[in-house]
Amino acid sequence: MKGIIAKEPGGADQLIYTEMPEPELEAGDLLIEVHATAVNRTDILNREGKLGYVNNPIIGVEVAGVVTDANGHHAFKQGDRVMGLVNGGAYAEKAAMPAERAMKIPDSLSFAEAAAIPEVFLTAFQTLYWIGQLKENETILIHAGASGVGTAAIQLAKVMSDAQVIITAGSEEKLDYCRKLGADTVINYKEQDFAEEVLQATNKKGVDLILDFVGASYWKQNYKSIAVDGRWVLIGVLGGNTVNQVNLMDLMAKRIQLTGTLLTPRSDEYKAELSKDFINKTIDHFEQDTIKPVIDITFPITEAANAHKHMEANKNIGKIILTV
Amino acid sequence: MKGIIAKEPGGADQLIYTEMPEPELEAGDLLIEVHATAVNRTDILNREGKLGYVNNPIIGVEVAGVVTDANGHHAFKQGDRVMGLVNGGAYAEKAAMPAERAMKIPDSLSFAEAAAIPEVFLTAFQTLYWIGQLKENETILIHAGASGVGTAAIQLAKVMSDAQVIITAGSEEKLDYCRKLGADTVINYKEQDFAEEVLQATNKKGVDLILDFVGASYWKQNYKSIAVDGRWVLIGVLGGNTVNQVNLMDLMAKRIQLTGTLLTPRSDEYKAELSKDFINKTIDHFEQDTIKPVIDITFPITEAANAHKHMEANKNIGKIILTV
Repeated sequence: MKGIIAKEPGGADQLIYTEMPEPELEAGDLLIEVHATAVNRTDILNREGKLGYVNNPIIGVEVAGVVTDANGHHAFKQGDRVMGLVNGGAYAEKAAMPAERAMKIPDSLSFAEAAAIPEVFLTAFQTLYWIGQLKENETILIHAGASGVGTAAIQLAKVMSDAQVIITAGSEEKLDYCRKLGADTVINYKEQDFAEEVLQATNKKGVDLILDFVGASYWKQNYKSIAVDGRWVLIGVLGGNTVNQVNLMDLMAKRIQLTGTLLTPRSDEYKAELSKDFINKTIDHFEQDTIKPVIDITFPITEAANAHKHMEANKNIGKIILTV
Repeated sequence: MKGIIAKEPGGADQLIYTEMPEPELEAGDLLIEVHATAVNRTDILNREGKLGYVNNPIIGVEVAGVVTDANGHHAFKQGDRVMGLVNGGAYAEKAAMPAERAMKIPDSLSFAEAAAIPEVFLTAFQTLYWIGQLKENETILIHAGASGVGTAAIQLAKVMSDAQVIITAGSEEKLDYCRKLGADTVINYKEQDFAEEVLQATNKKGVDLILDFVGASYWKQNYKSIAVDGRWVLIGVLGGNTVNQVNLMDLMAKRIQLTGTLLTPRSDEYKAELSKDFINKTIDHFEQDTIKPVIDITFPITEAANAHKHMEANKNIGKIILTV
């Protein structure tokens, strides 16, 4: 079978679609014929050789496809349409997926739409609910609102919690899109001081929860934006790693809960539990089309390099899909 | 009636015991004849004029005493022995205490012992359970193990959660005392690298929970000491406020939950809920003497200045009590 690997650690042009060994099934795995996969920032880090989490030369951590070998797992049978996270190996014709975290694809969704769900919706769901403890009618600030996780988080927060959603993004097109997804307040971070806008939108109270993909460059403004007893979940450092001169008394004075999290390196058990909880709570919304996967563009898998370049250009709204 | 105020913001010698107006009861308050109160670091900050939380010139935030006016609250009657947090005004002959957070004193305890409970045990209980989510058999690192909160936390963690308790302190006498209270591993931070000792005591895994009173000067070693998915609760900055460089990727890589908290400025409702939950879960242990308030020394209230100096000298093991 064929799969995408990086010839050498480096730029997008290192990606080649080449003959690779079939996935080796372990006892817990299903064998999947992959119909679609999707690009994640973690894939770029893997391509660059910067992460050691994924022990598979084939890039990619999520697939949508069809079960070709249920491998003795009675919850699935040959021909079932499934989506979910894999431990690497997604950009390929076949992939091994732990049965415990396979989710049946809602009938209303195509494979490309299904491939747009696992990583970003599970990350958003985990961040909002398992870590961020978002409650009904709370206020939330979502940075990078037009990103994959951002578009998922906006919808989950609105539909499941009727939250007051405030987002940041860097173009009018992105702001408009986020508004259509349900965001109540949209802020162009290139033109506005987002902390000022957040305080204005919340009667100076600040938000109960921040989804922070940005890190260092937003640190001070995020601190200004958060309410007393607020939760601040750090899931990316697009704006840098290192914050200088952090005043711990500030964290105590506002009684902030700051949590760093990553989904990919978590245990199989965690991902299985998360996948189950997520699909139970959201499947009706996907079937009724009240929550939708958001696709920016679809490439054939042979153009994986272009798909990576598209993500690196930071212009996508929602997911970048590869079809196999 | 008489009470202790600071003549001017400043050192311990500013404290004077002087005639003050009787406390004004609001609808929710009981009137308490104070028999004992206790010294807290927040009292020192108030004496120095550094905190704006407490809107009462009389110093002090916890009392043990007798109800002299139940003020229509049917859960209490004149003569009841109660302990609890007050909104300032504790170093005095009388104090107003919100009935919602008054706790009946277990029969086995004296007023001095009871006055050693509210602030440190409620802080330890809140930090371990409401914030730190300590679970059965987890490992915990408690800094300043011989402090008031430290001695309370060691006992709660051992008796209620059978946790593996690791403490730091700065003298052999303090280490011995913590061991007697139940600490499994004791570390002299003046002589040992505590992070190395913690890793050794936990098979290199690190601890599930850190109670951090120290802040900046321990930042790097605390990071080394914490396990993946660990919770780190910041309740003091005795070692300084400002961390020069925080690497946010570190927080993400270990998926750390860092929470800053303070008890004194929280709402009346919060303190009431916390007091109820605490006394329900611990009263049997106090009555059976399996958890004990820890008193370092008792001064008459006229010697409040000496009591403050004793705390500032940092030599106490457990609470410093003032009797009225």
